Formats: sequence, structure tokens, C-alpha cells
Amino acid sequence: MAKANAERALAELQGLRRIGAYKTGVHRPTLSKEDMVSREWLCGQLRALGHEAHVDGIANVVSAAPGDGPRILAGSHIESQNEAGWLDGALGVIYALEAARAVAEDPALSAAGCAVDVCAFADEEGHFGSFFGSKSLTGKLSEEDIDRAECRSGRGPLRDHLAAAGLADVARARLDPSRYLAFFEAHIEQGPRLEAEGLTVGVVTSIVAIWQYRIVAVGEQNHAGATSMTARKDAAKALLEVWRRLEDAFPGVAGPDSVWTAGRVVLDPNAPSVIPGYGELWFQHRDCELEVLERMHARLEEVIAEADAASPCAIRLEIVGRNIPARMDEGLRGHLAEAAEAIVPGRWRHMPSAGAHDAQMIQPHLPSAMLFVPSIGGVSHHWTEDTDAADIKRGVEVYVDAVSRRFHAALA
Amino acid sequence: MAKANAERALAELQGLRRIGAYKTGVHRPTLSKEDMVSREWLCGQLRALGHEAHVDGIANVVSAAPGDGPRILAGSHIESQNEAGWLDGALGVIYALEAARAVAEDPALSAAGCAVDVCAFADEEGHFGSFFGSKSLTGKLSEEDIDRAECRSGRGPLRDHLAAAGLADVARARLDPSRYLAFFEAHIEQGPRLEAEGLTVGVVTSIVAIWQYRIVAVGEQNHAGATSMTARKDAAKALLEVWRRLEDAFPGVAGPDSVWTAGRVVLDPNAPSVIPGYGELWFQHRDCELEVLERMHARLEEVIAEADAASPCAIRLEIVGRNIPARMDEGLRGHLAEAAEAIVPGRWRHMPSAGAHDAQMIQPHLPSAMLFVPSIGGVSHHWTEDTDAADIKRGVEVYVDAVSRRFHAALA
Repeated sequence: MAKANAERALAELQGLRRIGAYKTGVHRPTLSKEDMVSREWLCGQLRALGHEAHVDGIANVVSAAPGDGPRILAGSHIESQNEAGWLDGALGVIYALEAARAVAEDPALSAAGCAVDVCAFADEEGHFGSFFGSKSLTGKLSEEDIDRAECRSGRGPLRDHLAAAGLADVARARLDPSRYLAFFEAHIEQGPRLEAEGLTVGVVTSIVAIWQYRIVAVGEQNHAGATSMTARKDAAKALLEVWRRLEDAFPGVAGPDSVWTAGRVVLDPNAPSVIPGYGELWFQHRDCELEVLERMHARLEEVIAEADAASPCAIRLEIVGRNIPARMDEGLRGHLAEAAEAIVPGRWRHMPSAGAHDAQMIQPHLPSAMLFVPSIGGVSHHWTEDTDAADIKRGVEVYVDAVSRRFHAALA
Repeated sequence: MAKANAERALAELQGLRRIGAYKTGVHRPTLSKEDMVSREWLCGQLRALGHEAHVDGIANVVSAAPGDGPRILAGSHIESQNEAGWLDGALGVIYALEAARAVAEDPALSAAGCAVDVCAFADEEGHFGSFFGSKSLTGKLSEEDIDRAECRSGRGPLRDHLAAAGLADVARARLDPSRYLAFFEAHIEQGPRLEAEGLTVGVVTSIVAIWQYRIVAVGEQNHAGATSMTARKDAAKALLEVWRRLEDAFPGVAGPDSVWTAGRVVLDPNAPSVIPGYGELWFQHRDCELEVLERMHARLEEVIAEADAASPCAIRLEIVGRNIPARMDEGLRGHLAEAAEAIVPGRWRHMPSAGAHDAQMIQPHLPSAMLFVPSIGGVSHHWTEDTDAADIKRGVEVYVDAVSRRFHAALA
């Protein structure tokens, strides 16, 4: 069985952390200088291992190990949210790199031609869109999608950033599912469950689906002094009314693990003394069960209709995205469970993923597996995000052991 | 009695409208190129009338008519909100210019040395602060206030804009109340009352006070998927809870003419998939009665305390500004009422001002008067803002007639 060099993996993670360092985290937004430095660094590591590796036309790092024996695809994303944590994404990339190295160093597996191709997807964090890297690799991203994409933080069009990174004329890679036995992704949990239960590893059963909406209210912009309360068509107040109805209604239709979030509010003109004539409330709900998602969607539609009827503003619901929960492969879950029980006996569990991950884009094309390590305090998407070094090391050992088990099953 | 040349005033307004034209309105934010062009244009008009006129160190246009007879100060502001209307502010400046001309052209008044000094205050619209122009003129603006001021729309520090406009080393003018009999300001109503009642002129009794607050919630930024509903410290939801309590509570404590507005929301990081760890709700209430303002303030403090106690976030109230209602001078109101009854008999009324105006900064120093003309549809702070040309012309006739009456009273 291939064995991870856990100290080497931890050292690589610490090295990667220095690219775009921000406080104790990193700032490596997609296609920033720091992001491209990290992608080129990864290509260099893979080439040193004998891989063909390059950054493709959407900024995915793709690699191909030499030979034509059994292959596993492994990876995650390498960019970060703005001023965020050092492990979100990076951990999964370094685990994949360690798996590629460990398999190459294992006499039996390398003799049998087994190898791990490593990928670092572009923009999982959604600076420009939704899963553009893994969508591109699986043929779900059009040139028009790229044409339309603009940076959410105001850095401008995606096309400009691709050009500045020298990727304007680079082809986009496509996944060849026939080449691979499986896809493996590791990630921090981004939640408090593993830590709260004193566990080191989570074996993901299913990745939650996210149904993302934009609730739009159109009223009438006006003076905040001279317009009487009864004459107002206040778009902000219309959204408040929708939201209070949602917060009242959702506990009654949600499942036990459902979450819902209004994380983004846009008001125009967003000035203290002007009644806003336009507003957006970005609302999302997540669950692993399609039935629950549909129940919440139906209630949301009712709430919008009720609020629209009761409001002097026009309120409408726009669907930004709705995916379906992604079930992880049973066989691969078995390999991860065996590996976990061997390395951290009794200190692991099966669990759903409450966050979205590139694995859900790959899952329709390849049997896919995900492994979680704990997030201290459940924190992610913030520079204070962290994981205990011992957990990082045990995690990569479980990950490489499971990859190794999958190869041995193929060779048996 | 001095007579307004209403056609001339209307033509000047139409000319001023071309500086920074935006759709049917104007875009002349404070200290923008267009704003400075309009101020220089006004100085030129005043110099042509024999005034000393210049733009002072905060960008106020100040003028001094020749001679040392009885003086009235008249004006308003000349900058606009972003992409807003052509009359908000500009109308009052052109009425003042017309008064200066009409008085200069009136043989009796000019022989007696009567004259109108014209001012165009800087930044009444609050691009950088609150009434910086009229505060500076009345000695209520410190150099530190200017040091700290930043553009609300992200155009950077006020100091940079003053330097770019060539005003870095220009002294700020100070009001000498002993020089003046009175201050006159005209403005569009910015509300629907005059239009709804078929009236042409409003004589302002009192200017509403605005109590502006920032309600701040501090929670914990986290992942919108992996953080369970019960574990969240969602700053946006905390503000929602404050706001719903306010909307429930305020009708019970407000007066019949009170208004309250939450016009600005700031969330950090304001991303769809991140639970915001920080949020601000800018909340204000307005009334002409101090007792009502204090009742609303007390209820607001209770609501904040209740919401803070009930929330996993820390919620606090920050006072941005609280002024007192500004009562207009009884004698000047009498002159405006007589002028209105002479020119638009039966088509005028006394009324409070629901909007804030520079006159409230001048009122503690000089007897002050305000005249309103109707706003079509009650619209202001938007490029569709407009007033019927006939109303603009009758308004300036009433204004000049009232100014003239004040001079005659002084000469009698």
C-alpha cells in the first residue's frame, strides 16, 4: 500500500500559504497575480514528478502522469475567497499532490502503471461565476458564459483577467472519463461537527444542493423626508417584508439539516436619506434531500406571491442556480471508511457535505469521493480558518490509503 | 417694489441644467468638474452684477454686493445628488440671483443702497458630510472634520477633491450676521403636498429635524452551508430583527407627520454564500416636534436593547446626527404670505419642510425664510424630478416680492 509522507504534505501546505499571505490566511482571488503564482508553482511540482502539467484556458491546472496504467483524478481548487483561510481548497490540492507522489514512490503501484493525475480547478470560490473550472472541464461552460462573467468584487470582466494571465489563446481542457477509475477530493469541513464530536476524518455521503435566488423589489426612489409613510414605495421595506415572512415560514418546511441564508443585499442608491427604488436580496437554501429542497422552493414562491400582493412595490423571484444533491460513490466511501478505521480508528464518521464542492460537478462523470478534516471552531471563508496540524497529517494518510485501496481493487 | 423677471430666471435655470446634464436631470456631485464649472459660472454672473464673488475654501460661492446699505443673504446649494434632478438646490440659487438682479434694477431699492448677497453652499447633498458648506459659513466645521471626510460614493477624501479644485489654500468664508437683515432660501418641495392640493407656493413654518443613526450588528462571518441555523451569528439577520421590531413599534410612537427610513444597508462581506459577520443599518426619523423626536428616540433605544438581548450578535446604536427643528422667522413668513397672496391668491399655504435645508444652519444666526414650489409627483433625488414652468415663474415672483417687502419694512 502507498503511504503518505504527512510531514512533506504539511510542509507543502505551509509553503503554499506564503503565496498571497494575508494575516494568518491568504488572499488569492481567482486570476490574481498570487493565484497564478500558486498555479505555476503547482505545475512545477507536477512536472518534477514527470507529469505533463499546464494551466488551461479557464485557469484550471491539469496534469497527466506518464504511462497508461490505471488512473485516478484528484484535486480541489487553489484560489481563495478574498482575505480568507489558508486551507479552503489548498488542502485538497496538496493532498492530491501527495497522493500522486506516494503512488509514484510505491514500488508495487508504480510497477503496475498506477498514477494520480492532479487538478486544481479555477474559481470554485465564485469570484466570476459558479464552478467555472470544473464546469469547463466537464463541458458545461460556454464561451458566452465566459463573455458575460464579471468579478463580483468589481475587478472587471473575466475575459480581461484571462488575457492578463496570458490565457486568452489557451485551450480549455476536457475531462476524459474513460481515463479514470475515480475522482478524489479532500476539503476542510467548513463546519463544527467533526471538532464538536472529537473526530479527525469525515467520509462524505452526499454533497448538499444549493438553490440560489435573487429576490428583486422595484418601488420608487424618493426623498426620505418629504414622502409620507403611506405614499412610499420603499424597495428595502418590501425586501424586509419578504425576509420576515421567510424567516417565519422556513422552520416549518425545512429539514433537520437545512440551512438558509440571505448573505447579500443590494439597494439603489443605498443612501441614508433616499428611499430606495430598487433592491435585491440574495437568498439561498441548501439540503441533501431533493424533496426538502422542493418543499422550501414551493414555500418561497408562495411567500414572494403573498409579499408582492401586500406590497406597494413589485416583488419577483429570480432563480440564480439550482443543482441536485450529489451522492458520493458507495465503493469509494468503503475505501475511505476502511482507510479511516485503519489510521484513526473510531475517530471518523460518515457525514453529508453542507458546502458545495467541485466533486459535485465531477460526480455525474466519474465515481467520486470526498474526505473532510475538521475546521477549528467551524470557521471558514475567513482568515482565521484553521485545522490542527495533527488532523491535517492524519487526513492525508487516510486519503492516500484510500486512493491506494482503489488501485489495489482495480489490480486484483 | 422690485419685480422678478420670471422668464430670465427660468432661462438661467435651463442654462444651468446643461452643466452636467444627465438624462432630464443633472449629475453634479460636490467638487466634481461639473460642480466647479457651475460655481464659476455663478461667480461670473454675480461679478457682472458688480459683486465681489468667489469660491471659498470649502467650495461655497460667496458674494458681496457693492455698497453698505441694507443687505439680505439669499441662496441654496448648487451641487446635485448623483444622477439626480435639475432643480434640487439650483432653483434656490437662481431665485437668489434673480432677487439680486431685481433689487439692483429697482430704482427705489438701489437708491437706498439695498442689495442681495448670493450664496451657493457646498455639499448640502452630503457627498462628503452633513451641510459642510453652511456649517463652514457659520463656524461649525473644523479642519479635522474636513480631514476625516470621505466621499460616500467612493471618490476618496474631501481634501483631495478640494486640492484638485484649486481650493487647498483658499480661506473659508465666515458669516457676519450683523451685515444682514435676513436669509431667504427657495427650494422644490420634494414631496407631493402642494401638487396634490393644486397649490403653487408653500411658505415654510419650520424645518424638520433629522435624527440619523447607524445600527451596527457584529456577529461571526461563516460558511453559509456548513454552519447550522442554531450555530449562526448572522449580522444581517440581527439587523432584520431590529428592523422588524422598529416597523412594528414606530407607528405607535410617531406623530402624524413623522417619517422613518432605513435607506442604507452595509453587509460584510455581502456575498451570497457567506454569513455576514458585520452589518450596518442606517436608520433615520424626522419630525418638526422635538417631543415626538425624543419619543421615537426612546423607543429606538428600547428596541435596540431588546434585539441585542435576544440576538446571538452584539447590536449597538450609533448616533450619526441629531438636530433640532428650525422655526422660520414670523416676520419673514408674513412677507412671504403677503407676497404669495398678492401673486397667487388662494394658491399657497403654510407648511412644514420635511426635508433638511441649509436654512436650518443659518437660522440660529439670522432670521430665515423658506419658500417651496411644487414637485411633480413628489419626486426628488432622481433625474425625473421636475416642476411646472408656470410654478417656477410664479415662485420667483413671490420670492422677489417678499425680499422687496423686507427691504421696504427696513426702510420704513
